[in-house]
Amino acid sequence: MKPTITAFATSPDRGQGMARDMPVRWAFEEVGQPYDVRLVSFAEMKQPAHLAHQPFGQIPSYEEGDLSLFESGAIVFHIAQGHTGLLPEDAKARARAITWMFAALSTIEPVITEWETPEYFEQDKPWFQERRAILGDRVRKRLRALSARLGDAEWLDGGFSAGDLVMVQVLRRLTGSGLLEEFPNLAAYVARGEARPAFKRAFAAQRAVFEAQAG
Amino acid sequence: MKPTITAFATSPDRGQGMARDMPVRWAFEEVGQPYDVRLVSFAEMKQPAHLAHQPFGQIPSYEEGDLSLFESGAIVFHIAQGHTGLLPEDAKARARAITWMFAALSTIEPVITEWETPEYFEQDKPWFQERRAILGDRVRKRLRALSARLGDAEWLDGGFSAGDLVMVQVLRRLTGSGLLEEFPNLAAYVARGEARPAFKRAFAAQRAVFEAQAG
Repeated sequence: MKPTITAFATSPDRGQGMARDMPVRWAFEEVGQPYDVRLVSFAEMKQPAHLAHQPFGQIPSYEEGDLSLFESGAIVFHIAQGHTGLLPEDAKARARAITWMFAALSTIEPVITEWETPEYFEQDKPWFQERRAILGDRVRKRLRALSARLGDAEWLDGGFSAGDLVMVQVLRRLTGSGLLEEFPNLAAYVARGEARPAFKRAFAAQRAVFEAQAG
Repeated sequence: MKPTITAFATSPDRGQGMARDMPVRWAFEEVGQPYDVRLVSFAEMKQPAHLAHQPFGQIPSYEEGDLSLFESGAIVFHIAQGHTGLLPEDAKARARAITWMFAALSTIEPVITEWETPEYFEQDKPWFQERRAILGDRVRKRLRALSARLGDAEWLDGGFSAGDLVMVQVLRRLTGSGLLEEFPNLAAYVARGEARPAFKRAFAAQRAVFEAQAG
């Protein structure tokens, strides 16, 4: 049985692949698992039928028979655990790859989200410029540490893993900000992720949703 | 061999158990795994010897022979996977428990951190009061959804799991804020977590570090 995920019926980023169905689609593509997508409108996301699968009224959710999951990180982990290719077989290497998934979501993503949120909600506030600078420096501090750890390696710990998948997707949110480009090895790392055939297939699939609706 | 974790030599919260060694200590206590603690000063956290274990210069890190991990979520998961008691045996229930770990760290914690950060760094800024109200409402929105999902259940999905452990610890950051108390079932949920003997042992252990240093 093919699993089904939910995704935005109306792409808020106009098909740039920043929504959280993207890492899940990418994981499916990396392991060669076909999947179905159910598109949900913003109104539907707040209805009981969707909240039963995703209690916070967000996307993506994941359904596989009577198993219902949410949180893109948890779904990527579930896919990685059930297939070969996204987590090393060796137990120690596997634990380190999982560590990078958590690092991407707990240490890197929050400062990026905090940095980008004012752009949507506080641009008219008198504090916008000053706070933006503070938040940019918080992002830089984390990127500097990540850049130092990555060094000239291709991926964060040996071969490409779910840890890299989640990290690259998180860093993609900085696309066009200039912040990522201050750290050339991180920019190259993201480019390597985006060059993977599985990434490209996933990106095209979410892009097609936007293009169909844009008509 | 006992694993070793790192923790703050100087407790920033004066032993209130809000630092990220707390969920790791709690997980060890739940599964009955003895552990050692290496205390690190703020200066030591920025040194190469610590950065080799924790690239972001934070605590906790985890060492077990030649395995080195970081990120409290990843460490709790590693402990839960290697022992009985924190993750259900049934694969589907296990995937759901892991989902709640990610939900705690990716959906709940970031809005709480964003809400509490200005208290430390922006209290002297003219925007402090207005932003604080905005951020409080963002926390409320997430708590409302979590409260609706929990209902009158004891734990988030069947028996107590690593998902509850991480969620309770994240919600504890709201202690004394009044926000948690707006959702009585969540306040009771946190109290149930704190009443667990394993929580109490972990709390006492981190408290002892503060008391020894406070002399």
